[in-house]
Amino acid sequence: MVNQITILVYSVPIIAILALVFAGVLHRKIKKAPEGNAKMKEIAKAIREGSMAFLKSQYKILFVYIIVLALILGYFLDDKTTAINDGLYTSIAFVVGAICSILAGYIGMRTATQANVRTTNQAKKGLKDALTIAFSSGAVMGLSVVGLGLLGLSMVFYLFALVLGIDQTVSVSLLSGFGLGASSIALFARVGGGIYTKAADIGADLVGKVEAGIPEDDPRNPAVIADNVGDNVGDVAGMGADLFESYVGSIIASMILGVLVYGISGFILPLSIAASGIIASIIGTYFVKAKDEHGIHTALKRGLWVASGLVVLSSLGLSYLLLPSGAALGVFLSVVTGLIVGILIGLVTEYYTSYDYKPVKELAESAKTGSATTIISGLALGYASILFPILLISAAIMISYSLAGLYGIALSAVGMLSTLGISLAIDAYGPVADNAGGIAEMAGLPKKVRQTTDMLDAAGNTTAAIGKGFAIGSAALTALALFSAFTKAAGLTNINIQDPKVMVGLLLGAMLPYLFSALTMKAVGRAAFAMIEEVRRQFKTIPGLMEGKAKADYKRCVAISTNSSLKEMVIPGLLAVIAPISVGVFIGIEALGGLLAGSLVSGVVLAISMANSGGAWDNAKKYIETGMHGGKGSDAHKAAVVGDTVGDPFKDTSGPSINILIKLMSIVSLVFVPLFLLFA
Amino acid sequence: MVNQITILVYSVPIIAILALVFAGVLHRKIKKAPEGNAKMKEIAKAIREGSMAFLKSQYKILFVYIIVLALILGYFLDDKTTAINDGLYTSIAFVVGAICSILAGYIGMRTATQANVRTTNQAKKGLKDALTIAFSSGAVMGLSVVGLGLLGLSMVFYLFALVLGIDQTVSVSLLSGFGLGASSIALFARVGGGIYTKAADIGADLVGKVEAGIPEDDPRNPAVIADNVGDNVGDVAGMGADLFESYVGSIIASMILGVLVYGISGFILPLSIAASGIIASIIGTYFVKAKDEHGIHTALKRGLWVASGLVVLSSLGLSYLLLPSGAALGVFLSVVTGLIVGILIGLVTEYYTSYDYKPVKELAESAKTGSATTIISGLALGYASILFPILLISAAIMISYSLAGLYGIALSAVGMLSTLGISLAIDAYGPVADNAGGIAEMAGLPKKVRQTTDMLDAAGNTTAAIGKGFAIGSAALTALALFSAFTKAAGLTNINIQDPKVMVGLLLGAMLPYLFSALTMKAVGRAAFAMIEEVRRQFKTIPGLMEGKAKADYKRCVAISTNSSLKEMVIPGLLAVIAPISVGVFIGIEALGGLLAGSLVSGVVLAISMANSGGAWDNAKKYIETGMHGGKGSDAHKAAVVGDTVGDPFKDTSGPSINILIKLMSIVSLVFVPLFLLFA
Repeated sequence: MVNQITILVYSVPIIAILALVFAGVLHRKIKKAPEGNAKMKEIAKAIREGSMAFLKSQYKILFVYIIVLALILGYFLDDKTTAINDGLYTSIAFVVGAICSILAGYIGMRTATQANVRTTNQAKKGLKDALTIAFSSGAVMGLSVVGLGLLGLSMVFYLFALVLGIDQTVSVSLLSGFGLGASSIALFARVGGGIYTKAADIGADLVGKVEAGIPEDDPRNPAVIADNVGDNVGDVAGMGADLFESYVGSIIASMILGVLVYGISGFILPLSIAASGIIASIIGTYFVKAKDEHGIHTALKRGLWVASGLVVLSSLGLSYLLLPSGAALGVFLSVVTGLIVGILIGLVTEYYTSYDYKPVKELAESAKTGSATTIISGLALGYASILFPILLISAAIMISYSLAGLYGIALSAVGMLSTLGISLAIDAYGPVADNAGGIAEMAGLPKKVRQTTDMLDAAGNTTAAIGKGFAIGSAALTALALFSAFTKAAGLTNINIQDPKVMVGLLLGAMLPYLFSALTMKAVGRAAFAMIEEVRRQFKTIPGLMEGKAKADYKRCVAISTNSSLKEMVIPGLLAVIAPISVGVFIGIEALGGLLAGSLVSGVVLAISMANSGGAWDNAKKYIETGMHGGKGSDAHKAAVVGDTVGDPFKDTSGPSINILIKLMSIVSLVFVPLFLLFA
Repeated sequence: MVNQITILVYSVPIIAILALVFAGVLHRKIKKAPEGNAKMKEIAKAIREGSMAFLKSQYKILFVYIIVLALILGYFLDDKTTAINDGLYTSIAFVVGAICSILAGYIGMRTATQANVRTTNQAKKGLKDALTIAFSSGAVMGLSVVGLGLLGLSMVFYLFALVLGIDQTVSVSLLSGFGLGASSIALFARVGGGIYTKAADIGADLVGKVEAGIPEDDPRNPAVIADNVGDNVGDVAGMGADLFESYVGSIIASMILGVLVYGISGFILPLSIAASGIIASIIGTYFVKAKDEHGIHTALKRGLWVASGLVVLSSLGLSYLLLPSGAALGVFLSVVTGLIVGILIGLVTEYYTSYDYKPVKELAESAKTGSATTIISGLALGYASILFPILLISAAIMISYSLAGLYGIALSAVGMLSTLGISLAIDAYGPVADNAGGIAEMAGLPKKVRQTTDMLDAAGNTTAAIGKGFAIGSAALTALALFSAFTKAAGLTNINIQDPKVMVGLLLGAMLPYLFSALTMKAVGRAAFAMIEEVRRQFKTIPGLMEGKAKADYKRCVAISTNSSLKEMVIPGLLAVIAPISVGVFIGIEALGGLLAGSLVSGVVLAISMANSGGAWDNAKKYIETGMHGGKGSDAHKAAVVGDTVGDPFKDTSGPSINILIKLMSIVSLVFVPLFLLFA
């Protein structure tokens, strides 16, 4: 038994490195593909430089944040009664977690901005070759996230437990610092990236498409590069950081809960399941190959099914290998429950947001009576769409808890995210295809090329719904697992709703996702407004721009998006850290428990409704653009465009940021438990 | 002491009857005023008949509901182990509560539909006389609600305790049946009335104003009578039933909690405070007199301040009279806390929804960039506006609990609602003024008349914000008090969030207000669609209608609104009753506790955001109509109209219905405790 555990202990970082090596191989394959003509290269360079400029500026702010929080952690969390310096170690774990998250985002975005133009170029040859590049780029992102997550996590743990010889249980608890690092970066990446992408998008659309009447991705539009940069910083880096956080968060929570029940086996199991998921994901990528439009969708799903199947098998084996036979079946079934519920939530999301089904068709219908009815129907659709995901999450909680206690709940989150290597690849390939289309347009390539990239994009949109389902479901379960870990760490045995302090905590917690959304939505509004002013100014003051004789000042638009989004991400970011700490210190730790539970339940429902309303508006517009209800340019289309614009910050800024908010607040509470106990 | 209590015991119903007598006197005064010319009489008659037809049809459905639920209560709630027949008595209380609520709504609406045309007629003379009629009508509503509430409640209690000789504590607990009756009627009145008014409003606006290009309240519009009926059934009857429910709910909850701590004094105190509030309200009405536009606003507020001041004095006296001196101060301050917090929430609501302040001005500004930015900004405004009300409600909970325990929380709700007699009068006068303006328009009276009624309407809109603050704040505190009463009745000492069942309850509870809103918003959509079709049909098929030569078929529009709103109110109504019962029976009573807490916190924040977004959109449109940003007909105005239309179901259907949903679910749980214990 001990030997098997030793093998597993060493396998985890090795498999994590394998993921990174495989990502490296894919990256080289992408780089080898030609970039196309000079014009294409120039455009791609502008997008790449803009993206990297954003990252660099963001890193400067993050650097300050990391230093300050690391010092705070080091200073305030040192429990003088114990022999070890908890503050220092938590601080180290925090810094490594933050760096791993940053690295994953950097690799993913760098690759995406190299793959976009190559996808365009391969699209000249055909769908198959374009898919290979775009999906490989997504896979680099997916594998970097899981590889760096698992490698960082296991290295920090081994440093504490094996090198420094700290007790295993304590070492596991110090890992929460790693989660805090991941979570903090995720918040800034999601909020900053989300504001960036929507400010650029709205600015480009409102002035370009609506006022100037030029098509999407037209090179005359000064905001067009910023818009394409936005896809990368928002949809690639932002989403990557989000899921990096869920991934490591769920693993950490199950390690903390597992070590209490099953000792070493309890925390090796989630690590091993995650490692087996990496191998499953790599195998899965080999099944993603398609020749025609319909085939892409099937191919992407096929990859996911293969990986999921493999994870089911491996977790069955691992559970029986590591746990007493009485417990193994329950634990295994918890993992499977998470996996199945994740897929089911994805399917529900697809039902509510794809125009193949009734809800979006009805929404498109309501666009015929104008923008007001489009908005009302879209909001109602989002509100109604919460029912089944909540029932599914509730079922996952009840089933996995009854099978394996709190550990079971945490493991169901691990199960849901075990195939992240490939499911994130499916998600992250979408923006690459989107960018590829933009480059085709700007470079004036033949229509056929754009059609090919559009096909890729469309297939990505549908499968992205499944990815969103995973993101939301896993955020809920991860937050719940972290919440459980927090209560265990704080020694809380009872958070009684009948205690008015807890009720006040619940109320405040339920309010926070709304306040947070208000901040992010207003931030998008302000940033978009700055962009609109700039684009208008350029159209007015640059002679010959509209005639295509002069070049727009893309860099200035990129700078505006960068600066305003970075400025705007600070307050929401601080809110997420300060709110739980103040409640924990000033009202008490039970009230903090209430706050976390309140923000969890209120945040999950608000996030689902926003994501689905936004997705449905987007696709209702696309449905009308296929020629329904008068097609492009009709009144119904105009109403649908209003819906889509409202949905943009919903689905790409505020909604996803809420996922991170609830996870970050849980992990902040978990990390700062020693501080709260001091004030209790 | 006992003598004083006896005096108070008999004073309560006498003061309640006094309120009804005073309402009767006011009603006679209204009836004495002349109705104006034949045309005005004809229009008023159509509105009155439409309103009464709606009520009659609604009563038929409510009759079935009352019978069925009374039988269920009688059959299932009889605890065979006790000597008395709890089921039968709860059933009786339920029926009386329902009938009192229906009666209050009937009286209020009948008066409003008599006062509207007389207000128009008095507006010929001047502002002062018009205000007298409109405000008297509101006061009839306000006093009927508090009078019937207190009379019904005390009569049922005296029947149980004095006539039938049932133990006082048991008698008090049986009163929850009365609350259930009030709550059930409130839900149907709010949902049905809310759907009615918005379906008629949207139908009249979209086809009349937008498509046919005729002004508001134009007699050529076939939906114009239905629109005016809607103001009565939604804003008068619906709101009256809503506050009737909060009023009796908060009193019942504090009686149940009070009797456990202070015996007879504990339940006489809330009744006495409520009774003193009636006298204070009657005195307050004498201070509502104004000569010019600016004066109305001041006059309305003056009435409220006088009444509030009197309640503070009386509750100070009553607390020291009834309770041991150690407890009196804390209890008194709890009542005052509720009163102050109610006013503060009202002021915050005013800040966020009145165009005198920054938020609505900024919202109007965002209308310049189109309807999408108007919607995003309005939603963000609503989300942000939750912060202070939640902090205030939290403060009220913390302060009143620390002063007087759970009893203190319930009494702060009683305090908040003690001046309902006058605050509801201020609220309910608005729709009368609104109707009066409509009648002036339809009857083709001179512009000056319409201007006078518009002034009345405008002042009412601002003060209505304060009323909404009371409604929301009191709903939250009442629901919390009922929740506490439920936990006491169920003998629950611990609803631990760490128990996954409770967490699932929280999740499901947080989801319900959204599902409920989706149902009501979709219902408005469907009902409005039916209305739009009908109005279009009439414009097409009735020759000479547009030219004003032929008469529109108003009755058909009224019938469509009536039928569709009544049909649509059934499913949301059943959901609110069935959801808590199924969770209580199938998952358990702790999960039900979680469900109630989850729906409370999620519902309060959603309801506040909806009410404030809706109010802000409404006033942003009005602000632009004063000539800002291009005034009427400008692009900014068109965008603001979209915002206003989206806000309509927010602020008048879904938002207010959520208030009732959370109260109704709490009281359903309270009443059905014996059933849950059977399954536990």
